[in-house]
Amino acid sequence: MAGRLSPSAADGISSRLAAFAARTQWTDLPPEVRHEAKRALVNFFATALAGCNDPALQAAEKVFSRFRSDSACSVIGRPAGTDALHAASLNAMSGNVFDFDDTHLPTIIHPTAPVAPALLAQAQTRRMTGQDLLLAFVIGVEIECRIGNAVSPWHYQRGWHITSTCGVFGAAAACARALGLDETRIVWALGSAAAQSSGLVETLGSMSKSIGVGNSAANGLLSAMLAAEGFQGPLRPIEGPRGFLQVMGSEADLAAVSGGLGEHWEIMNNTYKPYPCGVVLNPVIEACLSLHQDPALDLPQVARVELQGHSLLRERTDRPAPGSGREAQVSAQHAVAVSLTLGKAGLDEFSDACAAEPRWRQVGGAVAFVDDDSYGVESATVTVHLHDGRRLSRHVAAARGSLQAPLTDQALETKLAELTAWGRSGCPPAPLAAALWSLDTQADAGAVMKLATPPG
Amino acid sequence: MAGRLSPSAADGISSRLAAFAARTQWTDLPPEVRHEAKRALVNFFATALAGCNDPALQAAEKVFSRFRSDSACSVIGRPAGTDALHAASLNAMSGNVFDFDDTHLPTIIHPTAPVAPALLAQAQTRRMTGQDLLLAFVIGVEIECRIGNAVSPWHYQRGWHITSTCGVFGAAAACARALGLDETRIVWALGSAAAQSSGLVETLGSMSKSIGVGNSAANGLLSAMLAAEGFQGPLRPIEGPRGFLQVMGSEADLAAVSGGLGEHWEIMNNTYKPYPCGVVLNPVIEACLSLHQDPALDLPQVARVELQGHSLLRERTDRPAPGSGREAQVSAQHAVAVSLTLGKAGLDEFSDACAAEPRWRQVGGAVAFVDDDSYGVESATVTVHLHDGRRLSRHVAAARGSLQAPLTDQALETKLAELTAWGRSGCPPAPLAAALWSLDTQADAGAVMKLATPPG
Repeated sequence: MAGRLSPSAADGISSRLAAFAARTQWTDLPPEVRHEAKRALVNFFATALAGCNDPALQAAEKVFSRFRSDSACSVIGRPAGTDALHAASLNAMSGNVFDFDDTHLPTIIHPTAPVAPALLAQAQTRRMTGQDLLLAFVIGVEIECRIGNAVSPWHYQRGWHITSTCGVFGAAAACARALGLDETRIVWALGSAAAQSSGLVETLGSMSKSIGVGNSAANGLLSAMLAAEGFQGPLRPIEGPRGFLQVMGSEADLAAVSGGLGEHWEIMNNTYKPYPCGVVLNPVIEACLSLHQDPALDLPQVARVELQGHSLLRERTDRPAPGSGREAQVSAQHAVAVSLTLGKAGLDEFSDACAAEPRWRQVGGAVAFVDDDSYGVESATVTVHLHDGRRLSRHVAAARGSLQAPLTDQALETKLAELTAWGRSGCPPAPLAAALWSLDTQADAGAVMKLATPPG
Repeated sequence: MAGRLSPSAADGISSRLAAFAARTQWTDLPPEVRHEAKRALVNFFATALAGCNDPALQAAEKVFSRFRSDSACSVIGRPAGTDALHAASLNAMSGNVFDFDDTHLPTIIHPTAPVAPALLAQAQTRRMTGQDLLLAFVIGVEIECRIGNAVSPWHYQRGWHITSTCGVFGAAAACARALGLDETRIVWALGSAAAQSSGLVETLGSMSKSIGVGNSAANGLLSAMLAAEGFQGPLRPIEGPRGFLQVMGSEADLAAVSGGLGEHWEIMNNTYKPYPCGVVLNPVIEACLSLHQDPALDLPQVARVELQGHSLLRERTDRPAPGSGREAQVSAQHAVAVSLTLGKAGLDEFSDACAAEPRWRQVGGAVAFVDDDSYGVESATVTVHLHDGRRLSRHVAAARGSLQAPLTDQALETKLAELTAWGRSGCPPAPLAAALWSLDTQADAGAVMKLATPPG
């Protein structure tokens, strides 16, 4: 088979990751890394509080509730608690169900959904300080994203749902670290994670996607708990001849896994979405929202809406007649129509009901793509041609939510407030935000979960 | 990517499998298929009752017991019950932990371990007749093995543990059928199974293998229960452009999935092991056990033990110094030494302790392979050359346990008795055997599980 790793080059990757997980200390984390971890959590709770009442969650909880051993752990946005494994799974599902959660740009992994819920569930069953949780979270994200880097872009293109397949390693490593496991046992946890790494792109747009994402959190936590009880794994689950990189990668980039470990941090490549859409649509939506404000925009007169941008924009979003809200999230035609028409691009604008409205067809049908690979995916120019010959144009050099123009802390807090209101759980967002921004000073990290469940 | 299926050729495979699962009736099963299902169950309980106290099971149960919601379901060979999902997982682990369970020859899937435990757990929570269980079992094995056929041999060679990756589909289909789901919901169950299909060959020889096998049973059952609650999956989880066959196969053989569905039966390609070893060793061990009886065999005088057989025999089992019982199971050198020396080849002869004994080195070191692809893998010739020039030879044309010389019902019952004694659970094997042979006449299939737990 092409692309087999030479044993010598690959040797020791699992061990090196385990050593990193076991030895890294809070004081090793640069201030910007610590802060980014909090930002990721604020964004995670925002999307989980929006997703907590999705039908996928309701169906899953209905089955899971039959298998709940206790109620020690909180289910975000929902009144009933459950045990740690089911809480990890449900909270990962909530966070990711709308794909409105964070995006690690090099891999398009949603890094927080598998890792944070596993740790938060653990924190509610076994006392953990805020610093312990943040440190374990950064470690988990690092390992998840580095494994993802090694197999990208082949892995996702082949059809693996990379958030699920790599997320289980992040959750396992984070929980193993938080449990204080030694390096040998962390390798075992990575081995049981490897045995459970799954998730297919074919499931995207269906509820089945969520069982993969939920499993990545729950099975990562399970892998760590099994390792703690002496459940042994293979010595080289990541790099072995029939391990993850070989089987689920192609010519995997070994240097990507352990090069510069502890020196540069993958969480700094994490981004947060201002709109619940594929990230390549961000600059297009931003331009359209600005055009909506333009008094000269006369929608019935629109003849053509030209989207100039990287070819990935067209490849990923040329979807003229989305059949569902999920498809609308990756439809340039729909995104352009709703943002030009309504001046809004939130969850309501990408619901099944909204996607089904025929009123978007005229403007959506006017969309035309102009490939220009001199653009990065964070930039685009939208030009509206009116029947009377006038043109209105907006260029966005770096969309909000890109690495060049990250959402501010305030914008993330606003996202938390808006999505919490949208999700109708009744949780007040302000105390939750305050607790997350000060998590590194708190003695009991698990307490934050109580702030994410309905009061009373 | 090479080997992409054309959409038209692939279309409808998931639907066809679902229709088969929903519509096949007990009366559609030929008598030999019904009987083979019982034989598979007798063999499964034998290996599960041997494996039930393995350290992997003990460690897993220790963790799982913290997450048990109830005790409605039996754990084979163990006193404490657990809930359906954990029972499915633990019983699949027990059945497969020694790789002494059945083998579907075209794929080397161990077909029963993922499917039977899921159904048996379901039968203990929701009344199911013996015929219902046997029918659902045959359906699950059929779907599991056909999906395996479509991706073989590439899939296993690439590094997928095919029992786990394909088993989850079999368990999902079997449980969905037993729940009486309609065809749409069976496709959903297959979709959630696809999202959870996992397992790497790298984990073989470690406990992590067992979490993959356990998941295939539990997650298959979970997929069916989720589908029953309206948890939707993709329309084409098996054949879609980013579905199982495309992502985890290469130039998948579509005809293998649905050709002749309901006309020929994959369970008829199932075999049962007389020895706890890789099946290619069966003829070698049988020859050596016969040579052990030969008064002319003078072990200190052995100069060379020539194994003439298919090249796969050498490729899979040339392992001169196995470091563990698991490695000894696939070591021709160890298998030859113990069977020539002791005249036995049971679980005791392939334990860690036995593998570590230095006494096997002399005879094991005399082993030499002679590749001869005119042999099938079920045949071999073993020739012992003594220092005084004499030669002792045995030719085995079709080893016991091959399709040409299947274990008899009586031999399977003896295996059940012997392995039950070996496992020391205290279960009397005779009532269990009687219940299994008459399962098609029983009103409550779940009752058989009580016979597989320690009395009192």
